[in-house]
Amino acid sequence: MKVDLIIKNGLVMTMEGRGVGLIENGAVAIKGNTIQAVGSTLEITRGYTAEREIDAKDKLVMPGLIDAHIHTGLALLRGVAQDIHHWMQKGLWPFMKHVTIEDSKKGSMVNIIEGIQAGTTTFCDYDRSMNHLVENYIKIGARARVAELVNEIPDNIGDVPVGELYPFYTEIGEQKLSNNLSLIEKYHESANGRITCILGPHGPDLLSVELLKEMKGLAEKYNTKLHMHVAQGDREIDQMVKRYGKRSIAFLEELGYLNERLIAVHLTEATDQETEVVAKSGAGMVYCSGSIGIIDGMVPPVLKFIESGGMAGLGSDQAPGNNCNNMFNEMKFAAILNKVKRSNPTVFPAALSLRLATIEAAKVMGMDHEVGSLRKGKKADIILINLLEPTLSPLFVDPIRNIIPNLVYSARGHEVETSIIDGQIIMENRQITTIDTRNAILEAQQAAKEVSTRAKQDILHANSEMLQMMEEGLL
Amino acid sequence: MKVDLIIKNGLVMTMEGRGVGLIENGAVAIKGNTIQAVGSTLEITRGYTAEREIDAKDKLVMPGLIDAHIHTGLALLRGVAQDIHHWMQKGLWPFMKHVTIEDSKKGSMVNIIEGIQAGTTTFCDYDRSMNHLVENYIKIGARARVAELVNEIPDNIGDVPVGELYPFYTEIGEQKLSNNLSLIEKYHESANGRITCILGPHGPDLLSVELLKEMKGLAEKYNTKLHMHVAQGDREIDQMVKRYGKRSIAFLEELGYLNERLIAVHLTEATDQETEVVAKSGAGMVYCSGSIGIIDGMVPPVLKFIESGGMAGLGSDQAPGNNCNNMFNEMKFAAILNKVKRSNPTVFPAALSLRLATIEAAKVMGMDHEVGSLRKGKKADIILINLLEPTLSPLFVDPIRNIIPNLVYSARGHEVETSIIDGQIIMENRQITTIDTRNAILEAQQAAKEVSTRAKQDILHANSEMLQMMEEGLL
Repeated sequence: MKVDLIIKNGLVMTMEGRGVGLIENGAVAIKGNTIQAVGSTLEITRGYTAEREIDAKDKLVMPGLIDAHIHTGLALLRGVAQDIHHWMQKGLWPFMKHVTIEDSKKGSMVNIIEGIQAGTTTFCDYDRSMNHLVENYIKIGARARVAELVNEIPDNIGDVPVGELYPFYTEIGEQKLSNNLSLIEKYHESANGRITCILGPHGPDLLSVELLKEMKGLAEKYNTKLHMHVAQGDREIDQMVKRYGKRSIAFLEELGYLNERLIAVHLTEATDQETEVVAKSGAGMVYCSGSIGIIDGMVPPVLKFIESGGMAGLGSDQAPGNNCNNMFNEMKFAAILNKVKRSNPTVFPAALSLRLATIEAAKVMGMDHEVGSLRKGKKADIILINLLEPTLSPLFVDPIRNIIPNLVYSARGHEVETSIIDGQIIMENRQITTIDTRNAILEAQQAAKEVSTRAKQDILHANSEMLQMMEEGLL
Repeated sequence: MKVDLIIKNGLVMTMEGRGVGLIENGAVAIKGNTIQAVGSTLEITRGYTAEREIDAKDKLVMPGLIDAHIHTGLALLRGVAQDIHHWMQKGLWPFMKHVTIEDSKKGSMVNIIEGIQAGTTTFCDYDRSMNHLVENYIKIGARARVAELVNEIPDNIGDVPVGELYPFYTEIGEQKLSNNLSLIEKYHESANGRITCILGPHGPDLLSVELLKEMKGLAEKYNTKLHMHVAQGDREIDQMVKRYGKRSIAFLEELGYLNERLIAVHLTEATDQETEVVAKSGAGMVYCSGSIGIIDGMVPPVLKFIESGGMAGLGSDQAPGNNCNNMFNEMKFAAILNKVKRSNPTVFPAALSLRLATIEAAKVMGMDHEVGSLRKGKKADIILINLLEPTLSPLFVDPIRNIIPNLVYSARGHEVETSIIDGQIIMENRQITTIDTRNAILEAQQAAKEVSTRAKQDILHANSEMLQMMEEGLL
């Protein structure tokens, strides 16, 4: 049978079954945007011919990574809010009100480039101005499941003193919800199906109970998921207790939010019991290891969630928190931080990290019929990794393999040489072929320069520990 | 004045003073293997001319990183011992007795390549067969402060059941000590001074009190330091208590080991009080964040050590534990794991990580007169980092800078483009110029294949959790 592309002679890792699904000397046949067959090189080359063949000798061929939670619209502010208290209020918000949609879009593109260069093929982006950011994904050729960040708080929320209840403005919520709906109407299943859209309530503390209820109804109407921060910090719990007299999980349970439509992000502050309630409800969880480690110095209860029968995926969160958007970083941190949390080197083995960045993340996002593993009929989202990089050398095969620990604990991301998304080669020899990456970076640099000029007085006024670090020559 | 090399137009980070010592639009003049001057581009280009100039526009120019604790001789076994209990006994040792000196040397070279590609210029290598491994550093052109691992235990130590006292063999100790001394005699201050040699007692539990005393005397005779594991795990403490009825720190204190000659590596099991004792003694500490996180699920008391007035540096340890030897990885892990340990995002700020990988590590190793910062008279060990990589973009400068958090929390290592060691350019455009890196990797691959064949029965006999993971398709 004639197909468009055959990848052959590689070590294929399908992520099918309960493990990682390795096929030595394997191959993949691709027609259009779809995987036609996966098997041994012998089987595939006997059964298929193609215009183009990629010789994957000394390469690992695996599903593209899924970043289950990223805010690319914040990427322009990478590195401006670290090592301080009140990261969001004193670090981010003084900048935020000076970031235009165009600025945000420029930063987003750099972030997407970074992700693709480190093997991400599906971005679950959750941010404001998504009707604009989504254009970046269309242009660069990535897969994205996007949601508009819907809340009822004003842009100058940073002026509200820490600890005071946020004001809600109905008209702001209506506008943002309308953006989310127009996103769905305009972009859902666009770009050959690469772009899909879901709903994005910002968090139980950031919009009114009326709007939360309305969005729940809309999720049922559109038969879609709700991407939402839940118990994401003591700041949220403080707001919930002050406003409603109850913590986030109990509040959401009463509201009927705890079910398979919910993608509960972070759960940083969830107790073991609350974690179990969410896991058993059928909701998914996204764990952002690096971001929560840096911002909060905490390890959310992802292992407890999985042990309670829940589905979880990994996300890189935003650049000014993590500060990188590299799923290899997340896989390594997820494993090590949980080993440290449990004081046990055997928990969170490498294969679990790999699953949480591929097939399990796909399940959480409701995309496992399309991506997350290499199987006939799924979309052709595939990355090729150079096994002759020193970080992955040498390779042991028998009686034990070392490729899985080395992928998770040693690879940095730059070992990814080729990225195929929706059947199209969008990166080859580490060069992204669809856009001018240097120009994208220079545009973001110019935007950052202008934002810092406009935001200067607010930054000085916020008086975070970073100003003192500047004085002490530490920054 | 005429010099050999000028690096100009860069963002220079000297690591001088108490912070990071940034100079915008800075330059460095190098003559022979020595830094002649550091200053603004204007100053340097007015005062110096050179045969060769490097335009460092959009580059960060900083001291090469110092890996204060690495066992490159184990690198061949990267990835064979993760996610299990008894990492050393059941993971490493079944392989170890089948690894020849030549195998070990081949793995070591891949490890050194990996380090250089991620910005390491000084390797504090501490391993068996150092008289052979040291040739790799001479060949590739790196700086190394090396020590032979001196113990009195046999190669088949893996056959001793977990928990039993190790047998000591005087003749093994004598041979290894003799190797350490011949290393010093033959290689100390060789290769234009790039190679320096110190003493390397393996750990308080792995050689007899007589040999420990002898090595202490030799350290005084040679006026040198002792690179040693101290309180590196419950395994060590168990051996110490069983053999001597006391824990490692108390034992070493009585032996007169706690002073500025000691480089105490890990201190994983040290109590707060023991940590303070070591810090106040003048001994240095090396913290290996990734390795101890993976192997033990622990965060050693490095912050307590620094707070007690001690000098600390970072090390990457061995590839089959960490599993990578990348100081960017160590810097990020050091910061985040300590934030998590203290549940406080403000502890271990980015600048501290940078100092512990440069100037503070140089102090711990007794090399701060030569390396660790950019200053007139120091050796020219300098790396250039591309600031236009997406992981470091965009750059904010005023009123706060983001380059330091982004270097520590976002860079992966591959942003390092150029490496100058002892005044020689040994990597340019990410290509190491002094050896054939591909050939080195293929040689290590062949050696690994042979080792796994020879070790197969021992690996099966050790019956670690990795065999079960193989069966379950997790490896």
